[in-house]
Amino acid sequence: MKPDGPAFDMTTLGAGASLGQPPLRKACVIRADLGPAREFATTQGIVRAMFPIVGGEARGDGWSGRILPGGADFAVRLPDGAYAVEARYCLELEDGTPVMVTNAGRMVPQADGRYLGRTRALLEVPDGPHRHLGDAVYFGTALAETDDADHVYIELWEAVI
Amino acid sequence: MKPDGPAFDMTTLGAGASLGQPPLRKACVIRADLGPAREFATTQGIVRAMFPIVGGEARGDGWSGRILPGGADFAVRLPDGAYAVEARYCLELEDGTPVMVTNAGRMVPQADGRYLGRTRALLEVPDGPHRHLGDAVYFGTALAETDDADHVYIELWEAVI
Amino acid sequence: MKPDGPAFDMTTLGAGASLGQPPLRKACVIRADLGPAREFATTQGIVRAMFPIVGGEARGDGWSGRILPGGADFAVRLPDGAYAVEARYCLELEDGTPVMVTNAGRMVPQADGRYLGRTRALLEVPDGPHRHLGDAVYFGTALAETDDADHVYIELWEAVI
Amino acid sequence: MKPDGPAFDMTTLGAGASLGQPPLRKACVIRADLGPAREFATTQGIVRAMFPIVGGEARGDGWSGRILPGGADFAVRLPDGAYAVEARYCLELEDGTPVMVTNAGRMVPQADGRYLGRTRALLEVPDGPHRHLGDAVYFGTALAETDDADHVYIELWEAVI
Repeated sequence: MKPDGPAFDMTTLGAGASLGQPPLRKACVIRADLGPAREFATTQGIVRAMFPIVGGEARGDGWSGRILPGGADFAVRLPDGAYAVEARYCLELEDGTPVMVTNAGRMVPQADGRYLGRTRALLEVPDGPHRHLGDAVYFGTALAETDDADHVYIELWEAVI
Repeated sequence: MKPDGPAFDMTTLGAGASLGQPPLRKACVIRADLGPAREFATTQGIVRAMFPIVGGEARGDGWSGRILPGGADFAVRLPDGAYAVEARYCLELEDGTPVMVTNAGRMVPQADGRYLGRTRALLEVPDGPHRHLGDAVYFGTALAETDDADHVYIELWEAVI
Repeated sequence: MKPDGPAFDMTTLGAGASLGQPPLRKACVIRADLGPAREFATTQGIVRAMFPIVGGEARGDGWSGRILPGGADFAVRLPDGAYAVEARYCLELEDGTPVMVTNAGRMVPQADGRYLGRTRALLEVPDGPHRHLGDAVYFGTALAETDDADHVYIELWEAVI
Repeated sequence: MKPDGPAFDMTTLGAGASLGQPPLRKACVIRADLGPAREFATTQGIVRAMFPIVGGEARGDGWSGRILPGGADFAVRLPDGAYAVEARYCLELEDGTPVMVTNAGRMVPQADGRYLGRTRALLEVPDGPHRHLGDAVYFGTALAETDDADHVYIELWEAVI
């Protein structure tokens, strides 16, 4: 298979040109520190999970920050063992800038015990030195290592336009 | 004004009968204990606020419980000073039953410094002695008292069908 | 049972006073006209349903309007046969004012074939003669009549603060 | 700048290894046909937009389909002229399989009058020949061409795990 997939694109359905594969640029990395999780099958037919996010760190291009206490990953365990995740928490950068994070997607269990994820993140920031963080769409990867229920590692990649 | 409002109802638009005013039955009361809030105007044109929920208590008909650490109220401050709120957190009842709460609506500032709110809550529960909690729609009231940024009081009223 | 339920309220958990049962005032009635529905069990463990909203009418206190084509009720059928619903559509009032409606809650099947619902609605309106519609929280009732898959009747009740 | 961005990754914050740039594989292309849009500044401080989706086509690896009437893109126009978009609609594939699409992200205006977008899509499908479509996370690109308010072209790229 060719790396970019099958031979159809936007022009197949009438567009004058296709946009091609979206270029990605690494934007930041985050480690979310988790508190005790709750998970239970609900009477509404899903398996609800909640992973409190009690802290963590972040590193971007020229900045670093920490996760403020108080967010969580509100998740649903799917029938195949994967989790549909929606994490919401607030970063505070070194210069005091708050960055509200919403990061949602899926975490998929691997044969070696790890969970690997793919997400899309939205960052909300105030005007100022970091305002460009709020102008982008981010595609994320996520990793929970084998036998470590306390951390999730996330890399956010700017989907460059 | 008549207590039930203007003279139109479902029959005006073709229904065979109208459902009338929904009867409400008090279902539970919750006190959410808040950690330090963050609030800032984002570059996307809204004022984002996040109120961590660090604990709290709940009392229902024959049960009591506590709020587990790890939830938050993810809110937006509106131009008129009210907040559009969406609180998500997990209760643990005395018998160990987890109850996932999503409670969303609006908190409106009053002349005396209080905030009064109206919300709709969704409860997610496992099968067992409290499963009826998951079968209802709840209309909520909420109160933040003057000069008390640390607590929000919520009553949930079952909208009886 | 007393009409206002069990003997606990906000004061039980420390508030200086309780808000009591929220007063409701009828705000408007809507008939949503549905197109052909789709419903299927997904590989993610839920039953997804989509009810297109192809038109309809609305009547409020001193105004009337119609539902513009293009919205839908994005729903999930629950294990007990009820639907968790989230309807989004746009009204146009007689004077041209657009009103964006989000109305979400639950529709519950009855022994006689009807579905009865309870919801909370959010209305988004522009500044102008109808701006008060955007300032309220609405609790809704909903009715789908026996053997009529083409209409849902909704009454919205302002949860007065 | 190096193509993969700054010199930090998951290992910087403690992970044993980093996942690297997520590989993408073209999954499908969609053309959404739009009806008349509504857009207005709300009293809640945002600019609400709704783009009805009245039809369209889709082409994937070994399948084709059409968009059923009844969905919409529920969007917010941001202060910089971009749109935060959330499109929800249902595809029907040639063999009758329904595919519920939720595709959300941002559309950004360009100097030449086009809008370019980046999104994440979730597909909900029934068990059967297309069930793999429901197992993936998709990163999307989107294009609205200059002087064409009637079509949006979307390519979905599977974020391979």
